[in-house]
Amino acid sequence: MRILVSNDDGINAKGILHLVKELKKIGEVTVVAPLTEQSAAGHSITMKVPLRVTEHYIDNEFFGYAVNGTPADCVKMGIKNLLKEKPDIVISGINNGSNAAINVIYSGTVSAAREAAIMDVPAIAISVTDHHPKHFEYAAKLSARLAKLVYANKLKTGTLLNVNVPDLPENEVKGVMLTKQGRSKWDDYYEERVDPYGSKYYWLTGQLLIQDQDDDKDQIALNNNYASITPIHFDLTDYEMFEKMKSWDIDTLKLNV
Amino acid sequence: MRILVSNDDGINAKGILHLVKELKKIGEVTVVAPLTEQSAAGHSITMKVPLRVTEHYIDNEFFGYAVNGTPADCVKMGIKNLLKEKPDIVISGINNGSNAAINVIYSGTVSAAREAAIMDVPAIAISVTDHHPKHFEYAAKLSARLAKLVYANKLKTGTLLNVNVPDLPENEVKGVMLTKQGRSKWDDYYEERVDPYGSKYYWLTGQLLIQDQDDDKDQIALNNNYASITPIHFDLTDYEMFEKMKSWDIDTLKLNV
Repeated sequence: MRILVSNDDGINAKGILHLVKELKKIGEVTVVAPLTEQSAAGHSITMKVPLRVTEHYIDNEFFGYAVNGTPADCVKMGIKNLLKEKPDIVISGINNGSNAAINVIYSGTVSAAREAAIMDVPAIAISVTDHHPKHFEYAAKLSARLAKLVYANKLKTGTLLNVNVPDLPENEVKGVMLTKQGRSKWDDYYEERVDPYGSKYYWLTGQLLIQDQDDDKDQIALNNNYASITPIHFDLTDYEMFEKMKSWDIDTLKLNV
Repeated sequence: MRILVSNDDGINAKGILHLVKELKKIGEVTVVAPLTEQSAAGHSITMKVPLRVTEHYIDNEFFGYAVNGTPADCVKMGIKNLLKEKPDIVISGINNGSNAAINVIYSGTVSAAREAAIMDVPAIAISVTDHHPKHFEYAAKLSARLAKLVYANKLKTGTLLNVNVPDLPENEVKGVMLTKQGRSKWDDYYEERVDPYGSKYYWLTGQLLIQDQDDDKDQIALNNNYASITPIHFDLTDYEMFEKMKSWDIDTLKLNV
């Protein structure tokens, strides 16, 4: 299995080391990851400045390619320019912090996997729930296990798996659940502060507001100490609203009324 | 109607001027837009560096607030800190370049509107198809018309409208169509170049590959010189794949097999 690995915490992050170590047991791994941390990069891509690729070594051993761009850039660059053949799967992570519920929207980790899905390559995004996770072992093993499962069972073209794991020792994770994206979202605000020169600046902070009840939502699975696996896609059309809007008579809309 | 306006081309872009001029005819407009261009910013938000807000004047008249962040940051900052009351609607644009089909994924313009939808505020993203558009008039008028329509008819909570307009004089736009997100995507690659110092760099380029046939896809409507209106949402769950994956027996998955 040819595996392309990326992330959003940057090529120096702990999570990607754990992931690569485990994936090397099951396939041929190529790493293409951002040179610097790209958390909350969303699905941004670099169009206005040129990209550079540098080889990254750990203890004098080649580890992978670093790109001065976003997670989505890395996957695009990996598939288009750096790999000789299309990979069988792209795995992005292991992310520091949950990408369940609304976090999926902001996530660079998920966007790297989504870029692969757009390029018709099966993909998995994997995250551990804490911003400073202590436990990558379960997530690393689950990634390898799911890679094999995806390889055997196939995903629909355009679908990727968004996987989240509670930050717990292996034996405390209760199991794995197939889930849907939760509705929980941030109750956040900008803290107003003053810099040493007397100028105001703002820093985003807040807490996740749990707005899910059902057991099959990713957020609830995590709260119950299960790992969650949510299949997601990139067709954003709201088909329910599409049907409702037929009564708006859009096609006879006049501009000046 | 209290209208919050943002964009991704930055507070100095032509498109936002055209939009604001038209919207002032129907409501009370507040502008909160990125200080610098943020094209293809996706739904990135700023968490690792502080944000600054500056007042932006045009011909000595207050135009709006500039934020040194992303489109989504601007909407969050506008609603959370700068506006006294929640706006009735958020309108993002008018973008230089199409946000139909796959472009919706990369779009900062759409993400600004989506941030509003996440905050339970109805929202519209509006774009003109050319990267250097000549015609903002139709898009500006359509924005105002749709703002009134959304105000009257209501959107489902969490839904926003992704509107795209062909870059044509008003009388050449054939009309407006209710559409779904197309499947057309980029056939792109990285051009390898060499800088004046002998180092390689890469620049993304390519062309949109039309992969839609149906008249009700945004991309086809635009190709036929219609404006397209696609309702989109932020629940990314692939429900079809969710059902299929029940046969994967995820809940009995063992890590070491």
